[in-house]
Amino acid sequence: MPKPGADMDPAQFRAAAHRVADLLADYLEGVERYPVLPKIQPGAVRAQLPAQAPAQGESIDAILDDYQALIEPNVTHWNHPGFLAYFAITGSGPGILGEALAAGLNVNAMLWRTSPAAVELEETVCDWLRGLLELPASFKGHINDTASISTLVALAAARHRADPAVREKGLAGRGDLQALRVYCSDQAHSSVDKAAIALGFGVENVVRVKSDADFRMDANALGKAIAADRAAGRRPIAVVATAGTTVTTSVDPLRAAAELCAREKLWLHVDAAYAGSAAICPEFRKLLDGLEAADSIVVNPHKWLFTPVDCSVLLAREPGALRAAFALVPEYLKTSEAATNLMDYGVQLGRRFRALKLWMVLRHFGAEGLRERIREHVRLAGLFKAWIEADARFECAAPVPFSTVCFRAVPKGKPEAQDAFNEKLVNEVNAAGPVFLSSTKLRGRTILRLAVGNLRTEERHVRRAFDLLCEAYARLA
Amino acid sequence: MPKPGADMDPAQFRAAAHRVADLLADYLEGVERYPVLPKIQPGAVRAQLPAQAPAQGESIDAILDDYQALIEPNVTHWNHPGFLAYFAITGSGPGILGEALAAGLNVNAMLWRTSPAAVELEETVCDWLRGLLELPASFKGHINDTASISTLVALAAARHRADPAVREKGLAGRGDLQALRVYCSDQAHSSVDKAAIALGFGVENVVRVKSDADFRMDANALGKAIAADRAAGRRPIAVVATAGTTVTTSVDPLRAAAELCAREKLWLHVDAAYAGSAAICPEFRKLLDGLEAADSIVVNPHKWLFTPVDCSVLLAREPGALRAAFALVPEYLKTSEAATNLMDYGVQLGRRFRALKLWMVLRHFGAEGLRERIREHVRLAGLFKAWIEADARFECAAPVPFSTVCFRAVPKGKPEAQDAFNEKLVNEVNAAGPVFLSSTKLRGRTILRLAVGNLRTEERHVRRAFDLLCEAYARLA
Repeated sequence: MPKPGADMDPAQFRAAAHRVADLLADYLEGVERYPVLPKIQPGAVRAQLPAQAPAQGESIDAILDDYQALIEPNVTHWNHPGFLAYFAITGSGPGILGEALAAGLNVNAMLWRTSPAAVELEETVCDWLRGLLELPASFKGHINDTASISTLVALAAARHRADPAVREKGLAGRGDLQALRVYCSDQAHSSVDKAAIALGFGVENVVRVKSDADFRMDANALGKAIAADRAAGRRPIAVVATAGTTVTTSVDPLRAAAELCAREKLWLHVDAAYAGSAAICPEFRKLLDGLEAADSIVVNPHKWLFTPVDCSVLLAREPGALRAAFALVPEYLKTSEAATNLMDYGVQLGRRFRALKLWMVLRHFGAEGLRERIREHVRLAGLFKAWIEADARFECAAPVPFSTVCFRAVPKGKPEAQDAFNEKLVNEVNAAGPVFLSSTKLRGRTILRLAVGNLRTEERHVRRAFDLLCEAYARLA
Repeated sequence: MPKPGADMDPAQFRAAAHRVADLLADYLEGVERYPVLPKIQPGAVRAQLPAQAPAQGESIDAILDDYQALIEPNVTHWNHPGFLAYFAITGSGPGILGEALAAGLNVNAMLWRTSPAAVELEETVCDWLRGLLELPASFKGHINDTASISTLVALAAARHRADPAVREKGLAGRGDLQALRVYCSDQAHSSVDKAAIALGFGVENVVRVKSDADFRMDANALGKAIAADRAAGRRPIAVVATAGTTVTTSVDPLRAAAELCAREKLWLHVDAAYAGSAAICPEFRKLLDGLEAADSIVVNPHKWLFTPVDCSVLLAREPGALRAAFALVPEYLKTSEAATNLMDYGVQLGRRFRALKLWMVLRHFGAEGLRERIREHVRLAGLFKAWIEADARFECAAPVPFSTVCFRAVPKGKPEAQDAFNEKLVNEVNAAGPVFLSSTKLRGRTILRLAVGNLRTEERHVRRAFDLLCEAYARLA
């Protein structure tokens, strides 16, 4: 039992930390003993928790026992090699250890003074990533929690460039302002809409440009939408192009978008949250041709660079533009050092030491190791695609540029019946336990997705997913 | 040397995790061997890091060696008991272990389905906190990274309540919209201004109401400011009252603000990021009389509830108001369960499992343990205040409701000379190593701050700070 109000004493902490080391090692080594999705109903965990905080302290061993009994089995196992839904991710060993060390230091990297090593390591790892993406040295980065925030910050900078008075005067009640328009494809992520809500653009002013047969933004349609808006007295400010859209991982024509943005003086933000990781391989970097002409780029190492959530890198060609939009230094945070204060580049004042885990991941794997694993994931997705294409019961629903396969079962029947069949199919497969696939709508039709992104995913997991699909198909057909 | 592209193998990971357990235990046990502020110049860390990511992977032991040699000594030691600057915080033992476990699970708590235990634990610990604050059961919470985001989300909900069309149409180019006004005191945190920038209100439309002699918002002046704005055709939408302002920890008159907001139909957001923690003690809860009438309240357990950064709880009286402002569910995230999907209540889609560490902290200490420690911190601040008041060379600069003392040296001389003396004084004290105090301006005058918030801070640390101040005073006078 702890002394009231005291932290664990050093010996207790050391013992508990070693128990946690084993809990983590056991979990990662044995994660496949769990179904990916816990077989519970909403409220099941809550029902086992007291309604109020305990009045008296409890021993750390009792807490860790409850963690083992109640929490660990009842999460969805994102760190399971059979997690093939959404975008599959990994909390890799070095990343987990980096997160633990960062929690021990517990620094706030808002100012250089409040944590020199954290600020300089953040600048360094962002430079490393910039180098891996073959971007000019003018790009500088900082780390946000999520791409939702990175995109919001980028669009705030775009707004500031379009109308610097917004910072002081805002958007409302001004006769001199037209509606501010942002363009993205009909495949872009919902975070563009959320940013448009937050920033006061409004969802209606997010122009969803149609995508082509391969789900890439139609650059012609983009040009026309911008021209039509100008003619109608609206004010285009930014284009969000996506490198690796959320459903099909398609890549918008970045070069064409960049040329259009240069001509129209619009901010180009590239949402490369997913495919930016792949772009550390030269063969995939080619698919992102024009990336270097963007004003800002978001890449999420927590998506496909094996870094635990959260870690979203926002790279800006003119970082001063972010600073101009946001910097606001109250008296109590003024310091005399000639150093970068990263709080000036975004919304959040408090900044966790996220660079540490990314540094440890990049060093553990090395650039070649990361490339090798990304290529292996792409190879596994290619295998699955080939199995789908070779089987008349299934078809691919989109090209597969990276490690995500969109597909569907095509039993005989009307589209609605096929859609319902696919919903049943994915539920059956997911109920089995060893794998988790996601489903969604693509141009109105239900499709299934298999995304390879976990470090421990091997060919046998992807094969298992295919076998389970075939078995479920046979049962349902 | 790791196999290219592979994570550590289980035995490697286990060994490294045990090494990290010892690194953490050694750090926490021996943190006082470091000066709180590292004695380095900007660029010193960076100069020792390669300009590019390594091509080949490196062993985890080499990485951890570098962590020990280069990173750990060169951070500002927020987890040091002599850290008495800004608001002092603690990454406590159970919190650090919770963060490590969360990184191992690596779940995303955006939807119930994507991590049932994480979502239900988040709801539960927010309810626990709500209970500790004696708030009605209608308040529900969710955890954000920072108070900057919690306040942004709250003000977005306020905006939505004032004009639901903003979500779709935005703020710009609309003839029907007046300037949207937000009120806070001249002592409120800069995050209100940052939210106003982001949300498109504009910094000019943050009305800084003057504070009284005790640095509390003047409710009369607030009422007049609102009336004047209405008369001038502007649109008041929200008041941000602060419970524990950043410089002096003053508490705005919440009851009066709530009554005014009810009458004027304005959203009341209470920034209790700091003092909300103290309010788990009945005697401090009394200072926050009226808190229960707020529309939203932000409390940061990473400030004074011994939880590692980041962890900011936003409690809303009508959580549906946050949902109405932000919910936006794309097809690929639609699920069939009747469960709470926490991504609907804010900007970020990705949501780290922050509830785990908070749960472990609340259980380890228990409510009584937390209260005991908070009272001890307040007692220590009271001692320091008494020493300052008893010494003619110093004076207090503000009342001390909690654990933060604002004070200054008062050598004979003009105000400018006194200010310069205080700047020199704090630099001398901080250069010594064992303690770190901050300085700022308060109503134009330089003041120093001593904030007690670290779990391991004892009377001897506070005494040391006072002794160092006296010694430096003698040298400089």
